[in-house]
Amino acid sequence: MLLPMSPADSIFLMVESREHPMHVGGLQLFAPPDGADSEDVRRMFQQMVGAEDVRPLFRRRARRSIATAGLWGWDEDGAFDIEHHVRHTALPRPGRVLELLALCSRLHGNLLDRHRPLWEVSVIEGLADGRYAIYFKIHHALVDGVSALRLVQSSLSEDPDERDMPAPWAARPKPDDDARAAPSHSLIDDPAGALRSALGIAAEAAGLPGALVKTVNRGLHDQAAPLSFSAPKTMLNVPITGARRFAAQSWPIDRIRRVAKAGDATLNDVVLAMCSGALRAYLDGLDALPDVPLIAMVPVSLHVDDHHREGGNAVGVVMCNLGTNLADAAYRLAAIHASMTDGKAAMSTMSPIQILAMSAIGMSPLALAPLLGVQNMFRPPFNLVISNVPGPRAPLYYNGARLDGVYPLSIPVDGQALNITCTSYADALAFGLTGCRRSVPHLQRLLGHLDAELDALEHAAGVS
Amino acid sequence: MLLPMSPADSIFLMVESREHPMHVGGLQLFAPPDGADSEDVRRMFQQMVGAEDVRPLFRRRARRSIATAGLWGWDEDGAFDIEHHVRHTALPRPGRVLELLALCSRLHGNLLDRHRPLWEVSVIEGLADGRYAIYFKIHHALVDGVSALRLVQSSLSEDPDERDMPAPWAARPKPDDDARAAPSHSLIDDPAGALRSALGIAAEAAGLPGALVKTVNRGLHDQAAPLSFSAPKTMLNVPITGARRFAAQSWPIDRIRRVAKAGDATLNDVVLAMCSGALRAYLDGLDALPDVPLIAMVPVSLHVDDHHREGGNAVGVVMCNLGTNLADAAYRLAAIHASMTDGKAAMSTMSPIQILAMSAIGMSPLALAPLLGVQNMFRPPFNLVISNVPGPRAPLYYNGARLDGVYPLSIPVDGQALNITCTSYADALAFGLTGCRRSVPHLQRLLGHLDAELDALEHAAGVS
Repeated sequence: MLLPMSPADSIFLMVESREHPMHVGGLQLFAPPDGADSEDVRRMFQQMVGAEDVRPLFRRRARRSIATAGLWGWDEDGAFDIEHHVRHTALPRPGRVLELLALCSRLHGNLLDRHRPLWEVSVIEGLADGRYAIYFKIHHALVDGVSALRLVQSSLSEDPDERDMPAPWAARPKPDDDARAAPSHSLIDDPAGALRSALGIAAEAAGLPGALVKTVNRGLHDQAAPLSFSAPKTMLNVPITGARRFAAQSWPIDRIRRVAKAGDATLNDVVLAMCSGALRAYLDGLDALPDVPLIAMVPVSLHVDDHHREGGNAVGVVMCNLGTNLADAAYRLAAIHASMTDGKAAMSTMSPIQILAMSAIGMSPLALAPLLGVQNMFRPPFNLVISNVPGPRAPLYYNGARLDGVYPLSIPVDGQALNITCTSYADALAFGLTGCRRSVPHLQRLLGHLDAELDALEHAAGVS
Repeated sequence: MLLPMSPADSIFLMVESREHPMHVGGLQLFAPPDGADSEDVRRMFQQMVGAEDVRPLFRRRARRSIATAGLWGWDEDGAFDIEHHVRHTALPRPGRVLELLALCSRLHGNLLDRHRPLWEVSVIEGLADGRYAIYFKIHHALVDGVSALRLVQSSLSEDPDERDMPAPWAARPKPDDDARAAPSHSLIDDPAGALRSALGIAAEAAGLPGALVKTVNRGLHDQAAPLSFSAPKTMLNVPITGARRFAAQSWPIDRIRRVAKAGDATLNDVVLAMCSGALRAYLDGLDALPDVPLIAMVPVSLHVDDHHREGGNAVGVVMCNLGTNLADAAYRLAAIHASMTDGKAAMSTMSPIQILAMSAIGMSPLALAPLLGVQNMFRPPFNLVISNVPGPRAPLYYNGARLDGVYPLSIPVDGQALNITCTSYADALAFGLTGCRRSVPHLQRLLGHLDAELDALEHAAGVS
């Protein structure tokens, strides 16, 4: 039986191509408990593929046929084959993070098999320091990036001594009523649907794509609107290819928080300032820095508390002037803070339809960008998407292995060759940079530039 | 500047989809020389990606545009990025051949990036026995499977002491005039084109697809023709998905040759008999063995000497009755021998246009199958393609590492969910089985069945 798929979800299947696979990803790094031996990863993998009862979300696949008039729906994969979805792989020597990022870059560039449930997990051994990694990949039609991260984290525990923990896709013996560590059960089984229903998008039904695109286009191009800027055409705003580059690194949240406090800015302002300084240095190094500032599309929560989005809070987007034309780190932070404050204030006065349009694009700028045809615009509406997704604050464990870090991989699209997604976990803020391999050369350099920019901000704020 | 692509080559781009990637592959196993240490593979990889001068064949990419009226052509990749094409990877523990085949299955199921030259190579370490492997993948539009194998082997040496050997894609300092180990230089730089020109296919130019399909269809469906049979509908003749299973194993050629001699059959007859017995056991084990015999499409050389195809020899195909309905191994071999003898005799009386049609489908049954729409036929024209490609007889080396085995990976298509390609090397004959992961479950079992069938044939022939 075919269950309906919301139009908002099916957009991600419709716009997908070899050039833009529409899956999100995540990389988790685990430190095994003391006394673990080298066979433990293999045993864990075998236990993971041995899961007999797989949750419905992970068994459903996308289908369409003449009978559905070509509309996408969900049905259950009658020949579910867990060994296709869960793979065991290894890094070549010397097994540094460099080799891990190269592997994730390649894995992230391959399309998911549409005949099967739209997810894959790779258990990765061979890190020289004894840690292991898990890369997961989930189609955006199934869950969005935020939900994907939460979904995977909901299978972890704050208890380092807990064992016999099931894999994220394994059905739980009983409903998980630990609301602190996980969203509600119904959300787990359909996080994307729940979030989108909350936004009211589902109600738009079949007429959505055309109407939505029109509304969003109006919003983006209305020069009188306080949220729109004229973004420069940069090397990041070009048609892209299918291969990816991925780079990732964490910084202590305390360092970022101290800068924010000293500069009377938000933590997210400082994150954006790090991105701004890094992009400036990166583009300058390639002789590609425009004279006018880059504009980032920044999804923001319209309520202060980001931790309960399933309660129906709206997500909006602000077009942020990154101040990349300014030579001084402190000036860039000030420009960003002003731009974000203006944007959030303007949004609070917006009409419901504007909020809906902005919210929709905040949920799915990735899907809309190809529809909007940004690659053909002389001036793109924005230069890149920078998201910051709050994560769990307490250290988490999986069968005794400590989660050392979580790094998000997102979706570059035509006209948006680079995506920056950040997520917090425990005491660190992780930056995940996902770029088109051809359009964004030397992506690793951005990590060094981010580090240098945090130094510069600390120095400017007098907290170094 | 766009160079023209022959219509026969561009078919492979036109019919390619997520479900049937149109690349061929090969897996090479190497035993490092005595005294090699674990850093050698890494050094080899670094030397491989360090190649500064890459041969034209490996730099060309497929392009089409409005300017070319949508026709495909070749141009040079101006931003050639060798690290995209040549990758370093590793097997998870315990590093058996099982893990190697699982990795190759996954690598073979992913599409090549069409924005770049259509090839990839993975250098694979982590085999527990100290060997390393190379998996390569080349689009059929660039070279066909036979040429791909020869191309890669032409970069190897018979001299175990030779060092500083360049990678297959690296330009040679001077033309290679060793005609024994390699085809002529012009063939190396455009092997597919040379072979197809020899067949006269290129002369058909733009009118080819339609006319060719019509001719081939007539040939296949003319029940009066001695080459056609009525193949049963089997589980192998269904629409396929994109994921792959790959299994491979070698047997000593001498064992096969002794059976052939005792049974007054050809070596290829015995190879087909092994496949027949193995398919019978496999299908029977899944309660899917049809009452009537399976029909294999078998490409054959019309001249005795297979080693000089570039000289203009024609390649034809015979529809072989595999006798899978017969319970006795000796009877199956006899049926196959009779069928192949009849088929080859019939072909020698065919008109030039019939030869051309058969030759064309022999070169590219993979491309034509989707065009012919075999997946929609009540009865497929044949059940699978079984190819046997002679390879080098002398042991080969790459910078002192002995080539232990070569295993071909081919292209399943809709209606042909399993492909068997064999290739000889030194004293062994390797079977490469490539199947759709969904339609051909338990593909590994076929290896055991092949082994059992060779035993049974030896027993029947009195040479065990």
